[in-house]
Amino acid sequence: MVEAAQQLIRERGYHATAISDVLERSQAPRGSVYFHFPGGKAQLTIEAAEAHAHQQVQHIDHAAERADSPAGLIEAYVDLARDGMLASDYSRGCGVAPLITEAAGVAADQSTGQSAKQAADLAATGRRAFAAMIDRLAFHLVDLGLDPAPARQLADAVIAAVEGALITSRALRTPAPFDAIRNVLSTQAVTLTPKAPTRRSR
Amino acid sequence: MVEAAQQLIRERGYHATAISDVLERSQAPRGSVYFHFPGGKAQLTIEAAEAHAHQQVQHIDHAAERADSPAGLIEAYVDLARDGMLASDYSRGCGVAPLITEAAGVAADQSTGQSAKQAADLAATGRRAFAAMIDRLAFHLVDLGLDPAPARQLADAVIAAVEGALITSRALRTPAPFDAIRNVLSTQAVTLTPKAPTRRSR
Repeated sequence: MVEAAQQLIRERGYHATAISDVLERSQAPRGSVYFHFPGGKAQLTIEAAEAHAHQQVQHIDHAAERADSPAGLIEAYVDLARDGMLASDYSRGCGVAPLITEAAGVAADQSTGQSAKQAADLAATGRRAFAAMIDRLAFHLVDLGLDPAPARQLADAVIAAVEGALITSRALRTPAPFDAIRNVLSTQAVTLTPKAPTRRSR
Repeated sequence: MVEAAQQLIRERGYHATAISDVLERSQAPRGSVYFHFPGGKAQLTIEAAEAHAHQQVQHIDHAAERADSPAGLIEAYVDLARDGMLASDYSRGCGVAPLITEAAGVAADQSTGQSAKQAADLAATGRRAFAAMIDRLAFHLVDLGLDPAPARQLADAVIAAVEGALITSRALRTPAPFDAIRNVLSTQAVTLTPKAPTRRSR
């Protein structure tokens, strides 16, 4: 169910993903929803976004394992996002962004008493998810030879740029935005890398 | 009503913005909706997104008027997005992105016969909006001295990166992502600018 919710949120966003759609896609029995997710749709969404962020952190780790420079790590991570967009035929975006762009609509919904708390929980989940991705990327950039401050700033730029390419590439139905940010970010990584980089953890 | 719809979409996204919310915020009489917007919410949303894109193009034009280099133009445009985010206390994102991330949910809604056409119209509006912003930025970058191919790629990177910073900065409630992309994009612009740039149109 978490996987189905994650797919649907990436395709349609938060509000348009109904529990009934998640059940249909996951083939799970209706009774299982409130057994596994007593918090209902908000809880399921939060677990789906956390799963998405966890996968992104794993992607960053795998890209870092194979990279021998900051630029190599960034190129591999951008390419992974690009490949995923093309593989979905421009139908799947980020699994976290809808929590940010749609949370205020949950707070505005007066039909449930829990709306303000749910909106705050969704926003907090989005915040933690992006923070985890940026932290892990910055960690590996330092491990690959960058100083902590520029590594942190470059990680901020990479996660923002990939996040935006997931929207503009999808809108324009072309990988050009991914290629464009890859070039800019990779060039910056090369500029920031000391001439004789040493992998600190090896 | 278009302005109220634009604000609400930036705050809550597409699905959570109801016609009744737009009426309440704009203080417009209920009867005026289907008089001015016979296509209902979809039409109002499309006009709001078009207004947002038009404003962005104007921002790019104004930034270009005052800039004396590609880097100067990019810095001014990023700063405008950053200032807007801070001024709204992290409550307003992009007015176009929700059309992309939520359009598939309109197509999936079987309750209206028009859903597939409406979803296609929303997606097409988003595509045109981003294309207009990228085209205008590329035009000015060429005018400020860049060659057309790198200008186009840099414009693709700028619009993607700003779009992403509108999400991650909002999520993290810090301007750091804007500062990070500003640094990367501006550095790249300097690298691409010929040593003795001449403003072609002046």
